[in-house]
Amino acid sequence: MAQINENYSKLQASYLFSDIAKRVNRFAEENPDQPIIKMGIGDVTEPLPEVCRKAIHDAVDEMGTRTGFHGYGPEQGYAFLREAIAENDYSPRGCEIKPSEIFVSDGSKCDSGNIQEIFSESAKVAIPDPVYPVYVDTNVMGGRTGQNVNGRYEGLVYLESTPDNGYVPSPPEEAVDLIYLCFPNNPTGACATREQLQEWVDYARRNKAIILYDAAYVAFIRDPEVPHSIYEIGGARECAIEFRSFSKNAGFTGTRCAFTVVPEELFAYDSAGEKVSINKLWNRRHTTKFNGVSYPVQRGAAAIYSPEGKKEVKTLTDFYMENAAIIHKTMTELGFSCVGGTNAPYVWIKIDGSSWDFFDELLHKTGIVCTPGAGFGTCGEGHFRLSAFNTRENVEKAMTLIKEHFGK
Amino acid sequence: MAQINENYSKLQASYLFSDIAKRVNRFAEENPDQPIIKMGIGDVTEPLPEVCRKAIHDAVDEMGTRTGFHGYGPEQGYAFLREAIAENDYSPRGCEIKPSEIFVSDGSKCDSGNIQEIFSESAKVAIPDPVYPVYVDTNVMGGRTGQNVNGRYEGLVYLESTPDNGYVPSPPEEAVDLIYLCFPNNPTGACATREQLQEWVDYARRNKAIILYDAAYVAFIRDPEVPHSIYEIGGARECAIEFRSFSKNAGFTGTRCAFTVVPEELFAYDSAGEKVSINKLWNRRHTTKFNGVSYPVQRGAAAIYSPEGKKEVKTLTDFYMENAAIIHKTMTELGFSCVGGTNAPYVWIKIDGSSWDFFDELLHKTGIVCTPGAGFGTCGEGHFRLSAFNTRENVEKAMTLIKEHFGK
Repeated sequence: MAQINENYSKLQASYLFSDIAKRVNRFAEENPDQPIIKMGIGDVTEPLPEVCRKAIHDAVDEMGTRTGFHGYGPEQGYAFLREAIAENDYSPRGCEIKPSEIFVSDGSKCDSGNIQEIFSESAKVAIPDPVYPVYVDTNVMGGRTGQNVNGRYEGLVYLESTPDNGYVPSPPEEAVDLIYLCFPNNPTGACATREQLQEWVDYARRNKAIILYDAAYVAFIRDPEVPHSIYEIGGARECAIEFRSFSKNAGFTGTRCAFTVVPEELFAYDSAGEKVSINKLWNRRHTTKFNGVSYPVQRGAAAIYSPEGKKEVKTLTDFYMENAAIIHKTMTELGFSCVGGTNAPYVWIKIDGSSWDFFDELLHKTGIVCTPGAGFGTCGEGHFRLSAFNTRENVEKAMTLIKEHFGK
Repeated sequence: MAQINENYSKLQASYLFSDIAKRVNRFAEENPDQPIIKMGIGDVTEPLPEVCRKAIHDAVDEMGTRTGFHGYGPEQGYAFLREAIAENDYSPRGCEIKPSEIFVSDGSKCDSGNIQEIFSESAKVAIPDPVYPVYVDTNVMGGRTGQNVNGRYEGLVYLESTPDNGYVPSPPEEAVDLIYLCFPNNPTGACATREQLQEWVDYARRNKAIILYDAAYVAFIRDPEVPHSIYEIGGARECAIEFRSFSKNAGFTGTRCAFTVVPEELFAYDSAGEKVSINKLWNRRHTTKFNGVSYPVQRGAAAIYSPEGKKEVKTLTDFYMENAAIIHKTMTELGFSCVGGTNAPYVWIKIDGSSWDFFDELLHKTGIVCTPGAGFGTCGEGHFRLSAFNTRENVEKAMTLIKEHFGK
């Protein structure tokens, strides 16, 4: 008799975005003439850069010839892309990352979801709160938690991001084995300083723990002092894996390409206490369960490292960051306390009371859809998220409406 | 202290293709003037069909406009593709598959590797021998086996495909929970009849087991009496998941698109004996750990269902099947006993003695590279595989050389 993986039964239904959709649909039915502006979504809106389109077109044409046809490629990604990543994303920031340490994939969601598989089921896991739900759910599926009690899973260590710590948690008192960190943060937009990350790296090395560092939003950092990679921190090559993506810098959310860095100095342990190379372990997982990213898509991704590509990515991310600045300025002037929006495309805004009540008020008074903070975890309560991924017109309209409603 | 998933330590290093490469490289160094013809590879060689290229080009152009831009799509795939699959791959064979039962992915390797995750770690698993190694390795990683002893993992039930059963195994005496089947088979090219599959479906229903049916090579079936889908068999909707791919019919091995069918009538059980929908369970897995296939690639895949696309796929698969016929005819005339090659792109050839010895003989006497059967499992010993995925020129050259060497 086929039995299920019962860990799945512990999962909480993901009500956040379906709840939002239900409330928005009901409002739209009751108010058919009210325009609705969606300011909650974490998906990009601007066209795919021209260099990427051209590179994909060229690669597709190549695929139409017998000599240019590409079948199965290396599961880890083509050398042209892995080399471009090492040279452009890491070298200029002083990080020596070898192409063999880079694993190209079809998305950071997959990578950050799959990474837990190579670690012991008994690993003690620390995750931020509020959090991108994939880190939590994949560990629930993997059997590393107990039941969910009042919105929190037994067995996880929650790293609280609150106004008191500027939304950047410090290492916990207790020892953990795996630590998920995300900077610039989703959903708060907060960034960690070099000193804060050094504290995490020191903690991880002390405890032989591994940091799973999600840097999907690195392209929005504008302050050169803010660390772009965990590998800018001394000792990180011995304790950290980094996830990056082309989704937000080059608008690849629908085109799909990302990568994970696993340094050669990174080890975990077997039950006899012997060191095991995580680069080799991840390589075994990646080559067994994945067959590489679409060749034309890899060509499209590599194109952003050309001089023209770098310009286009800068223009694209600048556009969203101008949106973020408009949102941040408006909300601050209205007296809201905000984090994010300066080195991240999200603005995380503090409110008194329930985030779902605020969501309803905002929707009913202005037609604007935000993301209620409670949807990202217990510490998200009392906050809401506005996203800079939108047209300028929508952002300006939304800010005018918010000023009319909340202005004195 | 971060500990590894120790099940990975049980994995045997995958020596097959690296062993082949080593032997070929050594031979090439010692015989620099000898041309080498690779007849072992399971990767397509012909260009990507024109309809697919055109559809991808159009979709990439769409992505360059604000109105046509596609960001995150549905994780399960766009409706246009899921509907085209249901209508074209299933309806004409009398299988009623709903679009909601189809999950589009970036590869059958991923799907057939990931599917085991949603089942209990204690599931008893039956796998064919010889076999596509992904079924085995992912269950080893998932903790469903003991150690490897003399080439076989403790705890697995091996379904032996031998000359005696025409390379199509019957259900075992004992009850198992999960059963991997692949028809047309990789590596043997054998196909199961309707009656043989009915026996499997009856067995699965009797034991509340689930069949994981890999139909990646369905496009090469030329005999209309051979079942194209497990769902042509009565009762299969209650006991089977089917994997299909665009890799071999449309040459998508480097473009990446596939799908999995999970019928609504399919259930497994929790430890309390309650029925759980596998469609819902797989949906939870798919939406949590995967972010959808590249939009242009999905457009490219959908294009094969257009009248022009169907013609191109037919031409493409006919070309490889003509290669297969040439190989099959030559080897049969030389007195070899062969299976496959008539409804599959692989010819599985019986020999006396060691398959590695034969590999060396073939390489050294003719410069032809085959795949030694022992690389696919214990029952692969005494066989070798020739692949029809090649240029006509290479196939003809190889057959001439083989005739010269083995002919009387």
